[in-house]
Amino acid sequence: MTSPASTTRTQVAIVGGGPAGLLLSHLLHRVGIDSVVVDHRSVDEIETTHRAGILEPDSVRLLTDTGVYAAGQERVLTEGDRHGGIYLRFGGESHHLDFEDLVGASVWLYPQTEVFVDLHRARVRDGGDLRYGISQTAVSDVETAPRVAYVDADGAQHEVLADMVVGADGSRSVCRDLVVGNERFFREYPFAWFGILCEAPKSSSELIYARSDRGFALISQRTESVQRMYFQCDPQEDPGAWSDDRIWSELQHRLAGADGYRLQEGPVIEKSVLPFRSFVQTPMQHGRLVLAGDAAHTVPPTGAKGLNLALQDVKVLAEVIEQVMVEGDDAALAGYTDRALARVWKAQHFSYWMTTMLHRGDGSSEFDERRQLGELASLVSSRAGATYLAEGYTGWPQ
Amino acid sequence: MTSPASTTRTQVAIVGGGPAGLLLSHLLHRVGIDSVVVDHRSVDEIETTHRAGILEPDSVRLLTDTGVYAAGQERVLTEGDRHGGIYLRFGGESHHLDFEDLVGASVWLYPQTEVFVDLHRARVRDGGDLRYGISQTAVSDVETAPRVAYVDADGAQHEVLADMVVGADGSRSVCRDLVVGNERFFREYPFAWFGILCEAPKSSSELIYARSDRGFALISQRTESVQRMYFQCDPQEDPGAWSDDRIWSELQHRLAGADGYRLQEGPVIEKSVLPFRSFVQTPMQHGRLVLAGDAAHTVPPTGAKGLNLALQDVKVLAEVIEQVMVEGDDAALAGYTDRALARVWKAQHFSYWMTTMLHRGDGSSEFDERRQLGELASLVSSRAGATYLAEGYTGWPQ
Repeated sequence: MTSPASTTRTQVAIVGGGPAGLLLSHLLHRVGIDSVVVDHRSVDEIETTHRAGILEPDSVRLLTDTGVYAAGQERVLTEGDRHGGIYLRFGGESHHLDFEDLVGASVWLYPQTEVFVDLHRARVRDGGDLRYGISQTAVSDVETAPRVAYVDADGAQHEVLADMVVGADGSRSVCRDLVVGNERFFREYPFAWFGILCEAPKSSSELIYARSDRGFALISQRTESVQRMYFQCDPQEDPGAWSDDRIWSELQHRLAGADGYRLQEGPVIEKSVLPFRSFVQTPMQHGRLVLAGDAAHTVPPTGAKGLNLALQDVKVLAEVIEQVMVEGDDAALAGYTDRALARVWKAQHFSYWMTTMLHRGDGSSEFDERRQLGELASLVSSRAGATYLAEGYTGWPQ
Repeated sequence: MTSPASTTRTQVAIVGGGPAGLLLSHLLHRVGIDSVVVDHRSVDEIETTHRAGILEPDSVRLLTDTGVYAAGQERVLTEGDRHGGIYLRFGGESHHLDFEDLVGASVWLYPQTEVFVDLHRARVRDGGDLRYGISQTAVSDVETAPRVAYVDADGAQHEVLADMVVGADGSRSVCRDLVVGNERFFREYPFAWFGILCEAPKSSSELIYARSDRGFALISQRTESVQRMYFQCDPQEDPGAWSDDRIWSELQHRLAGADGYRLQEGPVIEKSVLPFRSFVQTPMQHGRLVLAGDAAHTVPPTGAKGLNLALQDVKVLAEVIEQVMVEGDDAALAGYTDRALARVWKAQHFSYWMTTMLHRGDGSSEFDERRQLGELASLVSSRAGATYLAEGYTGWPQ
């Protein structure tokens, strides 16, 4: 074994430089804890991967209230769109759920890529040690003195020695395998989402969650001139088989109703099939290793909980790491899994609920279809029901 | 064809003399509309068949506010037990949902057999034409001038000629087949309920809906000294294979928890396996024939909606028949199906929700088990969620 080209000592090694890893690095920096962030991807690659775009109010506060932005420069507030609610559309009619009225909270439409840009800018501004575009990451000795080895773009071997290591390395996490004795829970869904970006004006000021006889559709937004839309499809669907005309015909059908609603059409500039699954690993900690975000759990996209859950993990984790590093309180470390998973399982149920309430099941019967309409009718006619949904959508208190 | 031993002319022929048929006959009598009730069963047979025992407040009002009882003699209030809520039990802890606090309403524990006794007594008191213990009921000419033929206990043929005929003849309805062009929707569940009556003191002042790692259990009551309990079982379960000891062991296990809760045991005096299915037929009207209650729909027992739905059908139907008979408004008849089914599909969803939230699914995964616990945790920690459940449990406004 050759000796590494560099050895860095830090307090916390963070594997994964997406929003979760960067927010953690930022929050730790604020309390004087050093970290090094490593990621196989390049900054450019992350900045151009379109992901979810709905932030819970507490996710917004994690950006605006922790010094990510210079005062008065809160991009999430100026470039993001505040959404005071959503529309549930079924039986050819839209029903508005007014979150401000129901729970006094709004969500924000602000793409994950922009969250990344803001956090990356903040870490660079604050002199963060960020190492993108590396490869062959190997994490070892997590029970005693964690070591993260990797190879840089020039093929040189490096190592980071840390007191703790955080696996914020996403749905294809390598860190999660290092949790000895882990249990993994999965749920597969018999459908996927066909997602498009299109050049068109907004079709709605807020998201529309639509249930139709041909399955679910979601009308979202990106900018004034580029929109994001989805419709339920087979997991094996080939995006190449879908012309713009066919896509618009399908979307229009799923949104059609007696109110004459029509989507604003335009050229489809990106199309892809998004996988759809649920996953949870427990525990989320082993020795000096902790997991955050998609490394430990995946939710289906309905209800947009994925990024928000990751940021909530980080919020808890920053507190825990501070307790461990500053106060030497290792019991806090052992309590992390339970604190994080309580929210994760609520979110798993919420995402499952939003999904099954609005999608056509595989081989779902006429009975199920009508029961689903019975549920939607109950929900929109009950302030309590709508409030319960709004609580989940805007995020529960920690 | 021999001529019948008797021909009776009436305004409304009611097939089925259970609570729904009798309540309808009673309500029609109050507005001066004559009816004849026929039923294959004997009064004694109906009075000894144990069924659901939870009445929504509006079901109670249908008994107390319509002259079923002499003033001050409201048995449902004096012999029934007011329940201000239920317990949800999971993770070995009980969580009280206080319906009075949440929605300002209570339900009443009052067995269906007692509802029957009260309605039967009222119809006899008021000179109702009730024909129990007949056989070979045949309903014909429902599109024009309905005719109900039957054979009495002595083998003599009789006929009832009516302006309208009501099929309140339960889950094995013959009337529903006469609805031309009907659609039927089913859902089967992969489990059933094992129900017992036992001689023991009350184990709880209100119902306990319990979720355990071995499946659902429900602790209910009948009197101070006789209790009703259920536990989820296989639909093919043989009651004969269950000794008292085995039953109590199973129930105690499903209710066990860190709080040390124990059921009060006693001799099991009745045991049976209750089927578990959902069914809806639409339309609920054809020509001069209308359906009410189990003849048109069945819900699973979780949440006790069955009898309440039947009584709500009758409430709507009494109005509709009055409009038809007194005002000659046949459009009211055509609107009956939609009025009744709006509530039925809400109740189907509510019963499905209560069922799936608390039962072990067939081949349900560890993921589903934990998600279910996530849902229950969300529900009991949210006033809105608990209120939404309470609204369904105590009945929605008509």
